Amino acid sequence: MKKMNSNASKLKIIPLGGLEQIGMNITAFEYEDSIVVVDCGLSFPADDMLGIDLVIPDVTYLKDNIDKVKGFVITHGHEDHIGALPYVLKDVNVPVYATKLTIGLIEHKLKEHNLLKGTKRKVVKFGQSINLGQFRIEFIKTNHSIVDASALAIYSPAGIVVHTGDFKVDYTPVFGDAIDLQRFAEIGKKGVLALMCDSTNAERPGFTASEKTVGKTFDNLFEEHKNSRIFVATFASNVDRVQQVINTAYKFGRKVVVEGRSMVSTIEIASNLGYLNIPDQTLIEVDQLKNYPPEQQVIITTGSQGESMAALSRMAASIHKKITIGAGDTVIFSSSPIPGNEKAVTKIINELLRKGADVIFQDTHVSGHACQEEIKLIYTLVKPKYSIPVHGEYKHLRAQAKIAENLGIAKENILIMSSGDVLELSEERACVSGKVPVGGILVDGLGVGDVGSVVLRDRQHLAEDGILIVVMALDSYSGQIVSGPDIVTRGFVYVKESDQLMEEARVVVDQALWNCLDRGVTDWGKLKAATKDALGDYVWKKTKRRPMILPIIMEV
Amino acid sequence: MKKMNSNASKLKIIPLGGLEQIGMNITAFEYEDSIVVVDCGLSFPADDMLGIDLVIPDVTYLKDNIDKVKGFVITHGHEDHIGALPYVLKDVNVPVYATKLTIGLIEHKLKEHNLLKGTKRKVVKFGQSINLGQFRIEFIKTNHSIVDASALAIYSPAGIVVHTGDFKVDYTPVFGDAIDLQRFAEIGKKGVLALMCDSTNAERPGFTASEKTVGKTFDNLFEEHKNSRIFVATFASNVDRVQQVINTAYKFGRKVVVEGRSMVSTIEIASNLGYLNIPDQTLIEVDQLKNYPPEQQVIITTGSQGESMAALSRMAASIHKKITIGAGDTVIFSSSPIPGNEKAVTKIINELLRKGADVIFQDTHVSGHACQEEIKLIYTLVKPKYSIPVHGEYKHLRAQAKIAENLGIAKENILIMSSGDVLELSEERACVSGKVPVGGILVDGLGVGDVGSVVLRDRQHLAEDGILIVVMALDSYSGQIVSGPDIVTRGFVYVKESDQLMEEARVVVDQALWNCLDRGVTDWGKLKAATKDALGDYVWKKTKRRPMILPIIMEV
Repeated sequence: MKKMNSNASKLKIIPLGGLEQIGMNITAFEYEDSIVVVDCGLSFPADDMLGIDLVIPDVTYLKDNIDKVKGFVITHGHEDHIGALPYVLKDVNVPVYATKLTIGLIEHKLKEHNLLKGTKRKVVKFGQSINLGQFRIEFIKTNHSIVDASALAIYSPAGIVVHTGDFKVDYTPVFGDAIDLQRFAEIGKKGVLALMCDSTNAERPGFTASEKTVGKTFDNLFEEHKNSRIFVATFASNVDRVQQVINTAYKFGRKVVVEGRSMVSTIEIASNLGYLNIPDQTLIEVDQLKNYPPEQQVIITTGSQGESMAALSRMAASIHKKITIGAGDTVIFSSSPIPGNEKAVTKIINELLRKGADVIFQDTHVSGHACQEEIKLIYTLVKPKYSIPVHGEYKHLRAQAKIAENLGIAKENILIMSSGDVLELSEERACVSGKVPVGGILVDGLGVGDVGSVVLRDRQHLAEDGILIVVMALDSYSGQIVSGPDIVTRGFVYVKESDQLMEEARVVVDQALWNCLDRGVTDWGKLKAATKDALGDYVWKKTKRRPMILPIIMEV
Repeated sequence: MKKMNSNASKLKIIPLGGLEQIGMNITAFEYEDSIVVVDCGLSFPADDMLGIDLVIPDVTYLKDNIDKVKGFVITHGHEDHIGALPYVLKDVNVPVYATKLTIGLIEHKLKEHNLLKGTKRKVVKFGQSINLGQFRIEFIKTNHSIVDASALAIYSPAGIVVHTGDFKVDYTPVFGDAIDLQRFAEIGKKGVLALMCDSTNAERPGFTASEKTVGKTFDNLFEEHKNSRIFVATFASNVDRVQQVINTAYKFGRKVVVEGRSMVSTIEIASNLGYLNIPDQTLIEVDQLKNYPPEQQVIITTGSQGESMAALSRMAASIHKKITIGAGDTVIFSSSPIPGNEKAVTKIINELLRKGADVIFQDTHVSGHACQEEIKLIYTLVKPKYSIPVHGEYKHLRAQAKIAENLGIAKENILIMSSGDVLELSEERACVSGKVPVGGILVDGLGVGDVGSVVLRDRQHLAEDGILIVVMALDSYSGQIVSGPDIVTRGFVYVKESDQLMEEARVVVDQALWNCLDRGVTDWGKLKAATKDALGDYVWKKTKRRPMILPIIMEV
């Protein structure tokens, strides 16, 4: 490895998200006056984030250093790598660099957010480099569950960092070339300061199977189910998977319909950009299905995660406008449940079976992430000084750290970072030198950041036991109660069958208020507190529940 | 098989729960004037049952036929088989029959509900039969993840039904005998009308491993982690598992502490009844831990499902009063996540790793349910005319139906039932002759059944987008607004940072109300509707959210 001048500036690596969670991948690379940001993803809300649609990273650090920020470099087109762009670009309006399909998917998003005109985009080819301030970034071909995925070689005066993005090693990919292992080797030969490698499957031994093996499975399944209509549910963004369904459908003389908004738009983008090869007259509109017998139909659909509003669920529940799944149909789940979706997936499988459909949900999917042997291969080609496991929960990062250690990387050179850490890196030393603000900003409808911990806590409280609202009107002169107290409830008990409880509750509040007023207490804060205490105690005693209690006083 | 008189009365099998779900197992067997009920379990709330603690079966049918009901016969002591007893016995107070440990666990529950005195209980031994009206019920030894599990041979004038309960075939159980396969065979020889067999693992090929294999794993793990304190998290009710931890701890000269309320009480009951063999001075109190070095300690704990309030979570989060898990500790998850708990389990694993603990969560658990080969074995011994798959979701029932079919049972004799179906069974014919009311009754705190679909819908609505309350006071003579309208919100937006939105919302409501009043509209219903519409539209336009809107009018 090259020797570096120890007086040189340091390279800083600052993950602004993605390290305590699955999703929301975004990492800043900083050297002197230059910052380059790799990926800009969203994450989906945790179970306790009630009513939240999605979560985007806090980019205060980028806003505070906006003059340094040279651009976003995007590894691939999945939501957890591009989904926050439309939100973040509003504050950090710098150029976006990515491969062709990735840019196509980003442009679709920007169009929806009316940001297309104001955003500079540049398509980069594999093998090509771009200069961004003091950095040079090279795009390296990889394989993943979406085409056009890229690793990055990030050249800085302090050394080279290789970032794999999400990847697997697929020697026989469906579209395009295998991962460019030669280039990884070449760069490795030059001397690599740090490798930031995908950890998602670091707990799994062996190799991830080639995407092409799924095509063979489709061939077998179509052969076995020659006489039934076939549905294939998969991820909307998995263009190669869709290609393989189309290939098999064509072989068996079936027509293909694509259902589900997100899948239709991905297929359109991929097809326009030349990433899909669809034989003439194979893809048809849903309205044309009636012209073909069931055994000549294939419906590719979203909803493989059991999402209740996706096409598959609607077709299973007979609330889809055009297609209903029933006896004689075969439904192939070409997917595996994302952690947390297991119950929803099982629910839709039960529903489909109950409708009389044949359901196939095993051995019809391969992962898009590298298993242990592939991770070892990349480490061995790249031979980094430092190992920085990325992409995955803490247990996955730890699993990769173990692999790196077994490959001979010094324990002190294996760096498990937290979001917000500022890692200063040179040949001599790696250390976390500080912290920058990070966090998830909640998006709910049009609101970005207007739902925070207070609102969430209220939603959780309301969800648990509902609300009791106590309204009363006080005379502004005498301070006496001129109307009420009345109690209105939602989400607490079924009021019509709880007359006695509600009546007694009213009496309890009445007494508490008169107790105050008799003692000359007219301060609204005290009246409200007395109401809350008395009613809360009564309700707990009677029901062992703690609904939100909200006293409202009107002045007349 | 014996020929039956076709004029004879029919046996009715009526599942009152347990067939559309995991849990809430309860099935009535009826012949003329006699009803026997097998099991009386609860289920845990589905994700959309916000704030609900547990769900119990609707036993209207039993209440309506109370004179016929001869008793509850319980197969084993798990919550999904005994948990609803304290609620149901209040309405259906009949004797309860079960094996010794099962009765012990039931008595513990009854004590908590103050029902011990009023409930007749009888301990039954394996091989023993009890006469209940026209039925005779024989208890047959099986194996399961709780000791003293029993299958039932239900003798009726219409024929014999064999009900396996939850079971596996364990040739080398930790406590007591292997499943009484000879008795299954003997009864099979007599001629069995129907087999109701556990379907939980019917999708899994092969055999479930013996509970004893886990003990060997413990031996290996304790050997490997000789220098660290060891925690073992497992199911509170798995007495055999606890026994094996104790055995290994004893071998390695370690002291054992049991943490977690439910586990402590189960261990106490099992130990008092002779189901646990604890060497002297092996089990110690948590306060004594300080007298031993870490490498001589084992803590067996609840919380293997990631439950946030269980002992393991509290020890990991350093909010447990006596024990904190940290660097140098080894935590063994002797369990697998119950579907739906995957994320919670991963969360605690990440947390433990982050604290520096070593976490082992693979290959340290065996299932308590029969896999395909065991199911085939039981069918082959029992040779039933009818197959009625039970225990499991629909896909599991279907998987067992397939097994039964492959074993040569006629397709029309394989009966997948729904809860509430009344199945009439005789040698000649099986048919669903009617339906009885069934359903889940929601328990929330002390309330049983006072939260129904309306309240749940409100909770979901509140959880999603919060609530906007609009209060106003109207003069009872003039009908004019004398105070308000004021808007109070919870769970909608962070009000302090949404001044403008809230102010505009107030103006919108004001205008809507004055529009009504100007046109002479004073009907409260119409004023409320106008408020809801105007505010709802405004909020949707501004935020794309649909909070609950609750107008409250006070008359002064």
